[in-house]
Amino acid sequence: MKHLINPLDFSVEETEELLLLAEDIAKDRSRYSEICHGKKLATLFYEPSTRTRLSFEAAMLNLGGNVLGFASGGDSSASKGESVADTIRVVSCYADIVAMRHPKEGAALVAATHASVPVINAGDGGHQHPTQTLTDLLTIHSLKGHLDNLTIGLCGDLKFGRTVHSLISALVRYPGIKFVLISPEELKVPSYIRKEVLQKNGIEFKETEDLESVMPELDILYMTRVQRERFFNEEDYIRLKDKYILDMNKMALAREDMLVLHPLPRVNEISVEVDNDPRAVYFKQAQFGVYVRMALIMKLLGVELC
Amino acid sequence: MKHLINPLDFSVEETEELLLLAEDIAKDRSRYSEICHGKKLATLFYEPSTRTRLSFEAAMLNLGGNVLGFASGGDSSASKGESVADTIRVVSCYADIVAMRHPKEGAALVAATHASVPVINAGDGGHQHPTQTLTDLLTIHSLKGHLDNLTIGLCGDLKFGRTVHSLISALVRYPGIKFVLISPEELKVPSYIRKEVLQKNGIEFKETEDLESVMPELDILYMTRVQRERFFNEEDYIRLKDKYILDMNKMALAREDMLVLHPLPRVNEISVEVDNDPRAVYFKQAQFGVYVRMALIMKLLGVELC
Amino acid sequence: MKHLINPLDFSVEETEELLLLAEDIAKDRSRYSEICHGKKLATLFYEPSTRTRLSFEAAMLNLGGNVLGFASGGDSSASKGESVADTIRVVSCYADIVAMRHPKEGAALVAATHASVPVINAGDGGHQHPTQTLTDLLTIHSLKGHLDNLTIGLCGDLKFGRTVHSLISALVRYPGIKFVLISPEELKVPSYIRKEVLQKNGIEFKETEDLESVMPELDILYMTRVQRERFFNEEDYIRLKDKYILDMNKMALAREDMLVLHPLPRVNEISVEVDNDPRAVYFKQAQFGVYVRMALIMKLLGVELC
Repeated sequence: MKHLINPLDFSVEETEELLLLAEDIAKDRSRYSEICHGKKLATLFYEPSTRTRLSFEAAMLNLGGNVLGFASGGDSSASKGESVADTIRVVSCYADIVAMRHPKEGAALVAATHASVPVINAGDGGHQHPTQTLTDLLTIHSLKGHLDNLTIGLCGDLKFGRTVHSLISALVRYPGIKFVLISPEELKVPSYIRKEVLQKNGIEFKETEDLESVMPELDILYMTRVQRERFFNEEDYIRLKDKYILDMNKMALAREDMLVLHPLPRVNEISVEVDNDPRAVYFKQAQFGVYVRMALIMKLLGVELC
Repeated sequence: MKHLINPLDFSVEETEELLLLAEDIAKDRSRYSEICHGKKLATLFYEPSTRTRLSFEAAMLNLGGNVLGFASGGDSSASKGESVADTIRVVSCYADIVAMRHPKEGAALVAATHASVPVINAGDGGHQHPTQTLTDLLTIHSLKGHLDNLTIGLCGDLKFGRTVHSLISALVRYPGIKFVLISPEELKVPSYIRKEVLQKNGIEFKETEDLESVMPELDILYMTRVQRERFFNEEDYIRLKDKYILDMNKMALAREDMLVLHPLPRVNEISVEVDNDPRAVYFKQAQFGVYVRMALIMKLLGVELC
Repeated sequence: MKHLINPLDFSVEETEELLLLAEDIAKDRSRYSEICHGKKLATLFYEPSTRTRLSFEAAMLNLGGNVLGFASGGDSSASKGESVADTIRVVSCYADIVAMRHPKEGAALVAATHASVPVINAGDGGHQHPTQTLTDLLTIHSLKGHLDNLTIGLCGDLKFGRTVHSLISALVRYPGIKFVLISPEELKVPSYIRKEVLQKNGIEFKETEDLESVMPELDILYMTRVQRERFFNEEDYIRLKDKYILDMNKMALAREDMLVLHPLPRVNEISVEVDNDPRAVYFKQAQFGVYVRMALIMKLLGVELC
């Protein structure tokens, strides 16, 4: 394994190993603080994504490495007509590992094909965003202690949300997983997820429009943003956007040990009053995102604690 | 003290301590060159300010720390509708200290309220820019040896210049300070500065339109830029912009030990011929800006020489 | 020597010394990995040039130094009307060495005049780009073992291509150099190159429109991009742009040990099928670019291996 392009590029065993490493890092960061000394990460962000980029950069700096790159396409040579294949071959001379964000689906795969250093897909269009999935898995694994035997509610835009699709695909590999899919009719999971991922793997799931009624069943509630740009008309957006807002009234219906996750940025789908509830772990999730990227960089570079 | 949001957040005693630390750093930088090893500064610049951003980054690198961040709002997640409160909570997972520049007044205060790491206000709209004030104080303190018993001329745009207002507010805390306020009628200090800061504290000051006549009295001449965007009409701007240009003829009227400061960037309000005069210390000021930010980062992080 | 502004700022002897240092670095990078510890490079890019900027940053990081700066003019203080002279005086307080890219010819020279640290010209308009020339020289020197007694084909846009003009000017200083200038009539080298550089130095050269016929003579083939923006009308561009495409048919006519160089980015003037030919060294060139910039930074900073 040299690259991370798709969320399922790591097997269950490899994922377990990665998550355990991330948890060991979380326990004692100082032991890892020089392990990538002299190594360089290139962050090639053809479209801006501050959160993801800073998370990668923090991860590499935490390992004692360095960072170079660009934050948006306008600053890059792409405007001179250079292909991703050529750019990655050049950047392979500049860095030991690359994290690439690109608006086009498949760009990271093309990069990996031509790179002579490991490439991490930091998001390619609406397609894949594997380090978000690893972040979600680490958050659940660290705070629940396991990834199996969980009832997971996914709420909001289940049609277009790539983080939701990737998380479902990753979790069906564990025994005892049940999904509760909570969305308006218009934003239900696409049929390929329902058929090819859920039914094909014999996974228990139900679909509902009503968040309140299912709250008591959930171990995990994964909230997502309903993006304005996903709607054909403004009217639909306005009607639906507030329908699945999580507030303290709904939280009162949930279990004591339920966890609320969110890939962020949050707009208003979670009321700020929920932030102080100990079950709200979406800001902790950002911290887990750094740890899992630290583990990932180590794995792909092949560096280990002596 | 965990944040620096307003220029007066530090008391006279704390300011003195900070300036002495900055002067010790200036004397022997190498003793401090690893003191923040493993620490990370995030520079969150929602609007560009190259000079200020690079000064912070140089400061952190000089201390052996690392830097990550963004240089302008277009590169940030702000465009996805995320609040400053959410962004700072996430960035608190990425960095040990934050310097934030934001076009909106009060943004840094909001950030400080939600951050779990120290926040430095690197400018919020036309409101506050406390590290510029600390830079000005360090420049005077280092080159004059004291901050009291000085006659300080402030020249140019005294109405809108926030650095002028902050400097006045900081200096009235020292005994024996006199101000000479030199500006066209249209750009005099606002009445709240005249009443609430100067008169209320019993500070001696005079207002004049004539730079030449007061030159011989001054220990410090603080020049400022007359910004085109401050004027309602172009005509006024053109009439006034050249009225307070400092040249060698005016410098000939000044004391041997007078100092000329300027927050930079300078456009044409100081003739380039003045640059070589030993009393022109505005480029040295940029160097003092790095030292004072080094001291500030150390104080807020709570790191000290063993 | 404190700055590098023009490709000929280094004499033949100084160039030789620089290339030998770069080759020593290439041989054992780890010996140089901390040699600039505590030093800072400022990359001041008033226009974007990702490749060049990242090459400089990789070079400085490889030497154990740090990097700060900006990637495009929009992020800089230039928009506030500050002169390059003032900016460089301030940045001299922030960094130990500067690499500057600017759209205006002569900007780097102005910067060098006012800087108190070494300035490297990383491209000033269509004028000079000396580190590209050093990269080309190192590539040839390392792979051929010498810079004299070579027949060098230059193909494509020889009229506007500054890298071509600089490379010619640098190579005429070595004995036994012959040039084959391959271009459409419209894009031949300007007459000052023909007269002042080639004829004046008694250099053997020929001009041709036909790439194929001269392939067997060449030791080096230096390909360049034919830029759309150089043409007065679209028709001419379309007619000419494909005329000098290097493919495997033409490569079959070349010597076994001919080298193909290209300053990159490549659009379509070299078919991707050529990339795997061992004679295609344009991606290796990017690696040599890092080594030569490492050597350059060391020389200008005056640091040496103990």
